[in-house]
Amino acid sequence: MNRSGLFQLIKKKQSFLCIGLDTDLSLIPPHLLKLQDPVFEFNKAIIDATHDLCIGYKPNLAFYESMGLKGWESLEKTMQYLAPFKNELFTIADAKRGDIGNTSKMYAKAFFENFDFDSVTVAPYMGEDSVTPFLSYENKWVILLGLTSNKGSNDFQFLETGNGKLYENVIRKAQQWASPDQLMFVVGATHPEEFKNIRALAPDYFFLVPGVGAQGGDLEKICDNGMNKQCGLIINSARQIIYASKGEDFAQAARAEALKVKDAMAKFVTKL
Amino acid sequence: MNRSGLFQLIKKKQSFLCIGLDTDLSLIPPHLLKLQDPVFEFNKAIIDATHDLCIGYKPNLAFYESMGLKGWESLEKTMQYLAPFKNELFTIADAKRGDIGNTSKMYAKAFFENFDFDSVTVAPYMGEDSVTPFLSYENKWVILLGLTSNKGSNDFQFLETGNGKLYENVIRKAQQWASPDQLMFVVGATHPEEFKNIRALAPDYFFLVPGVGAQGGDLEKICDNGMNKQCGLIINSARQIIYASKGEDFAQAARAEALKVKDAMAKFVTKL
Repeated sequence: MNRSGLFQLIKKKQSFLCIGLDTDLSLIPPHLLKLQDPVFEFNKAIIDATHDLCIGYKPNLAFYESMGLKGWESLEKTMQYLAPFKNELFTIADAKRGDIGNTSKMYAKAFFENFDFDSVTVAPYMGEDSVTPFLSYENKWVILLGLTSNKGSNDFQFLETGNGKLYENVIRKAQQWASPDQLMFVVGATHPEEFKNIRALAPDYFFLVPGVGAQGGDLEKICDNGMNKQCGLIINSARQIIYASKGEDFAQAARAEALKVKDAMAKFVTKL
Repeated sequence: MNRSGLFQLIKKKQSFLCIGLDTDLSLIPPHLLKLQDPVFEFNKAIIDATHDLCIGYKPNLAFYESMGLKGWESLEKTMQYLAPFKNELFTIADAKRGDIGNTSKMYAKAFFENFDFDSVTVAPYMGEDSVTPFLSYENKWVILLGLTSNKGSNDFQFLETGNGKLYENVIRKAQQWASPDQLMFVVGATHPEEFKNIRALAPDYFFLVPGVGAQGGDLEKICDNGMNKQCGLIINSARQIIYASKGEDFAQAARAEALKVKDAMAKFVTKL
């Protein structure tokens, strides 16, 4: 999916919500556990219940890898289930990969060829040649960690370098590697005070914003400070939506939560 | 495996060589491709031919993930094959993972519980809570990216912060999180001029050193500048050893290459 396709989708759906499929066997409704593939059944039900309210899904790879081969299978099935929605749902492999050039190329193959994800999250520490192998795929995206939502973001990302903080260097430098048509940045919702500054640093780039909800970020402030003319925001929510209920009604409960977020977003989208 | 076990192993084998199992279907001998699991057969032959010359193996996850489910299976079989060598081979999941706390916990489960790796490489950008979940396993190790071997290491790792370069901050800070019994650092062989400095920053920690061989690093200089009393170095070599021949003799050729490196290392080990 390209950038204008993404913006069209946001306007059509009046939403820039992405739902995190951080599917954890210890948190999903117990009645699913007796099924053959509880993880896939859970994801399928969540997708069925919410796909008209969100613009995409973001499975975090760690949850699938922690289940070994079976988890990898559940992820494959989930991506196959999403395939017919290709033009109306943006998919993010939240993998935070990054390695030397010839190795990053292998990760790109894994996520863009085998799984056909639209995008993958990448860690910036190893620099340009760890990122560029992901850029050789048309209409596929790198989502580079800029300023993350977790407490540990304070350890290195805010280090002053004489030319701005480390995360500002990352956001500036990476723009030399890829245009806003191939690159986005992760900007955590837990740093709303930084959004205006980051938007000024990268006016045309989309930001993937985790941390709204369970991690405490504030939607309104982020929209006021972070939106651009093509929206420029994809806001991810996982636990708050997918684990809204542990009962048989979990999918409806997830829909109800997603609807609340979508409704809150619609008033910002109509301004675009 | 704990630190003294690792040092004993180095002395016993007169080697601190780790062999990178970066197994790539397009580079392994073509006659293997007709077998049911060429990747596992290749790894098995390499292990059989070299396990007395090296102290461990480091599969880079990207190569396995790029082959989808089948690759994941080949990795499982490789780790099962290595299991009986538990006390004489150190295993490294070269995964360069790192995510928010509850997610890193899932990666730790994947590599330490499901696969039973001794260690996993972790990227530092997300800070403390992305690293500490890996530290709750006894005798398991985090190998944190310090100064990497690739060209892109120049993009951010050398940024001056007013309190040293970024990579120096990483190496200093991470020592607050874990002792030399649980934490190592990746220090690329392509920066031999930095080794003395890095050893002074972290006197007791092991360094995993990639980039000798195919990437051009120099063994002697690294040993002179980087060794400590317990060796403190694990030097990884992949392509130069495992792809020494594309013929039916590939395993013997790999052994011959490994032997050269091991012999070069032995004279440094005898000084310990």
